[in-house]
Amino acid sequence: MDIYLALVHHPVMNRKGDIVTTSVTNLDIHDLARTARTYGVLGYYVVTPISEQRRLVSTIVSHWIEGEGRTSNPNRSEAFTRVEVVPSIDAAIAQIRERRAAQLGESDSPLVIGTSAKNERATVGFDAMRDRLLTETGAALLVFGTGWGLAPEALDKCETMLPPIEAIPTRAGYNHLPVRGACAIILDRLLGAR
Amino acid sequence: MDIYLALVHHPVMNRKGDIVTTSVTNLDIHDLARTARTYGVLGYYVVTPISEQRRLVSTIVSHWIEGEGRTSNPNRSEAFTRVEVVPSIDAAIAQIRERRAAQLGESDSPLVIGTSAKNERATVGFDAMRDRLLTETGAALLVFGTGWGLAPEALDKCETMLPPIEAIPTRAGYNHLPVRGACAIILDRLLGAR
Repeated sequence: MDIYLALVHHPVMNRKGDIVTTSVTNLDIHDLARTARTYGVLGYYVVTPISEQRRLVSTIVSHWIEGEGRTSNPNRSEAFTRVEVVPSIDAAIAQIRERRAAQLGESDSPLVIGTSAKNERATVGFDAMRDRLLTETGAALLVFGTGWGLAPEALDKCETMLPPIEAIPTRAGYNHLPVRGACAIILDRLLGAR
Repeated sequence: MDIYLALVHHPVMNRKGDIVTTSVTNLDIHDLARTARTYGVLGYYVVTPISEQRRLVSTIVSHWIEGEGRTSNPNRSEAFTRVEVVPSIDAAIAQIRERRAAQLGESDSPLVIGTSAKNERATVGFDAMRDRLLTETGAALLVFGTGWGLAPEALDKCETMLPPIEAIPTRAGYNHLPVRGACAIILDRLLGAR
């Protein structure tokens, strides 16, 4: 399957479980763009409903694709060509459908795969999901939440969920991975060379 | 084995291959502390020869262990209790020896394991290294370079090396992972639940 990724800034939870909108951070754009590119992700959608923040992301992306960044760091520039900015998860899904319709004549919706640090809802194990991604055709969208994770309303858009990342049992018991680390680990579990 | 981690700011390379000292970044301290804690790493050594930067790291760590961060985010605080700051890789090795001598009466040097985005020197595959870490006793120190990677002088201190991280062959060919992502993936390959 062709893989796409979304980093969601709304609707996500804060520490208290309230539904909030987190701020876009420059480093999340950089880190996830580079990691996504390493694993052949076709599009990395930065999701925020705040138009001012979308403009900020577009400015950063332009710097790296068209501006000074292009010559100063061509590898980084290449990773940024796959960054898109959209107001919602639905908009990311719609854009993936449109891109695939235009490029491939396929208009299927992507399989939307949720991620969480908590064991919530039914999950499909990493190996089973890997098999599916590597053997089936079509598109899949991996959805990551910022803050304290995806809100129920965002999880409702996910057709399937991955389990939380865990260390081997003797080392487990603490799970407070940064989203940048969680995203890298999940892409590697699903698409890393073995 | 007991696992320790070092993030090296000198000697590392810049884009041109010169040996340089990179700056400590606040986010590397946070991300690697949280990731290391998730995988049961016993100590995370921030390595920089610049005393001003070591003071900066100590100030940040104190904020999280003793200061306001302790009550505002106890999980984060816990991760920071494992952060140490040292002037050199040798100092990290010496401190691991001292800690183990004091705590366990063992004074063996840790197995120093290098990492690189390039295929350089002889490497031991991830599965073989995982087996070794999970079955042998003693200590191991995983060494990560900032900038464009560990300089030869730093690689010389590594008894063994891990191979570069790669995606499955059909997606490979681009390797420009952030050190935060590479560290997360490597800890997961070596110590993640399967």
